[in-house]
Amino acid sequence: MPGDSLIWLDGVRVSSLPLPDRGLEFGDGLFETLLIRGAQPLFLHLHLARLLKGCTALGFPDCNDAVRVQLQGACGEIETRGWAWSAVRVTLTRGAGPRGYAPPQRPTPRIIISATALAHSSQDMAAPAAVMLSSVRWPSQPMLAGLKHLNRLEQVLAAREYRDAGHDEAVMQDQQGRPVSVVAGNLFLVCDGRILTAPLVDCGIAGTRRSLIMEYWAPALGLAVDEVDLSMARLETAQEVFYSNSLLGLRAVSALGPHRWSSHPVCEALYQQYRGALT
Amino acid sequence: MPGDSLIWLDGVRVSSLPLPDRGLEFGDGLFETLLIRGAQPLFLHLHLARLLKGCTALGFPDCNDAVRVQLQGACGEIETRGWAWSAVRVTLTRGAGPRGYAPPQRPTPRIIISATALAHSSQDMAAPAAVMLSSVRWPSQPMLAGLKHLNRLEQVLAAREYRDAGHDEAVMQDQQGRPVSVVAGNLFLVCDGRILTAPLVDCGIAGTRRSLIMEYWAPALGLAVDEVDLSMARLETAQEVFYSNSLLGLRAVSALGPHRWSSHPVCEALYQQYRGALT
Repeated sequence: MPGDSLIWLDGVRVSSLPLPDRGLEFGDGLFETLLIRGAQPLFLHLHLARLLKGCTALGFPDCNDAVRVQLQGACGEIETRGWAWSAVRVTLTRGAGPRGYAPPQRPTPRIIISATALAHSSQDMAAPAAVMLSSVRWPSQPMLAGLKHLNRLEQVLAAREYRDAGHDEAVMQDQQGRPVSVVAGNLFLVCDGRILTAPLVDCGIAGTRRSLIMEYWAPALGLAVDEVDLSMARLETAQEVFYSNSLLGLRAVSALGPHRWSSHPVCEALYQQYRGALT
Repeated sequence: MPGDSLIWLDGVRVSSLPLPDRGLEFGDGLFETLLIRGAQPLFLHLHLARLLKGCTALGFPDCNDAVRVQLQGACGEIETRGWAWSAVRVTLTRGAGPRGYAPPQRPTPRIIISATALAHSSQDMAAPAAVMLSSVRWPSQPMLAGLKHLNRLEQVLAAREYRDAGHDEAVMQDQQGRPVSVVAGNLFLVCDGRILTAPLVDCGIAGTRRSLIMEYWAPALGLAVDEVDLSMARLETAQEVFYSNSLLGLRAVSALGPHRWSSHPVCEALYQQYRGALT
């Protein structure tokens, strides 16, 4: 049933995490959210590539072989349950350690996999989103920009804000007020036949679907994607606004404050590319 | 024995945390590290005041009554064990929740208390610290500055760096290169008879011992503490450099790169104030 969940720790079905764990104590870890079709993780290589980048940045050993094996085990169980589409979160923590910030010299990372059955089919684009401008800005931190680590308080607070305000999503700016992303996805503007997206050198997460759009799906439509600093003026006057994430693929934006977008031809064409890549 | 540990979840002795937990998933929570003498948490009101500020900022309910009760239970057990000095970490998470960044409308926070016996007596000042300048800078995030939340990756990476380099601590700068703190403590400079410390409006943690120094211990010596933006030049030419934290109290800095400080009269006098407040 949609919403049903399963959790594994280091390949074993569990319902709890041994303490202490540095993932809990300091957010000392990484994660990935994968879309699973049947028993098949989609675009796995891109998730593993980002995870490996994160491991290097945080000084974790390369855990990708273990992640691959444990993910296969999880997907086997998902198949048994008959879930057509599911979301799998892979969390990697630095594991146990003594008191204090300094991590163990030779950490033993833990892999936590949690799988949730999805209701939607991921075959049809979600209805355009009404988004707000978040009052919560990304922290400025070039050293960790692009990575999907466990320090995600800003997105939690921004998600709480848009949910409480009755919106579908929110645009998050950097400390300088430049639009960077939505809470759970990368942001794209269509401006005079070009697609623009934030460069993510100072903050933000480099999404797997973002790189697919940049490298494959936009070029397949004869469109280039430019990484440039965005501005609110550019966002508000864009011909089209949309965002990408791993579970939705792409989603058009219909409104931001007083601004409205009623047609989304580029986003729809990219969604067809995405749908083709799912099969 | 020093290093021995005990863990409680919501007042019950445990060795694991139920999953899912948003503290692990997103660093969606707060913590405090308290020094315990016998069964007595020291300067508890300051820790609870900061925790409450954090709860307000993150949209948690006020958990201080429950923390107080559970801490009392933990300290009773600590007394039974005969630990003279111990460190207690109180971690507050937003608890369980459905998949995704948006927190539940009515979260049920979890309180995790972990106690570790300390070897040192906390009666004598630690030997002056040889510190390095960290390559890891604080993220810029005015909205969360001062709070002790669970997003602490920068300090983990900075602690790893100074530990691997054989130093005792490291000075961390903000994104503009201004010295803010050490990894686990607030930084103070003595310059021409004044004590200077960073204002923590953009990053950093507002330590409990920092506020005691500012409000009580420095004034008791006839010294004022000014919150001002620090610079590396000011640090390097200071007559004295020291830092504060909840387990050490205060500790003098003897070296930073080529710079040396051999006498620490202000830090030593403040330590006497601190020692007086412990009893």
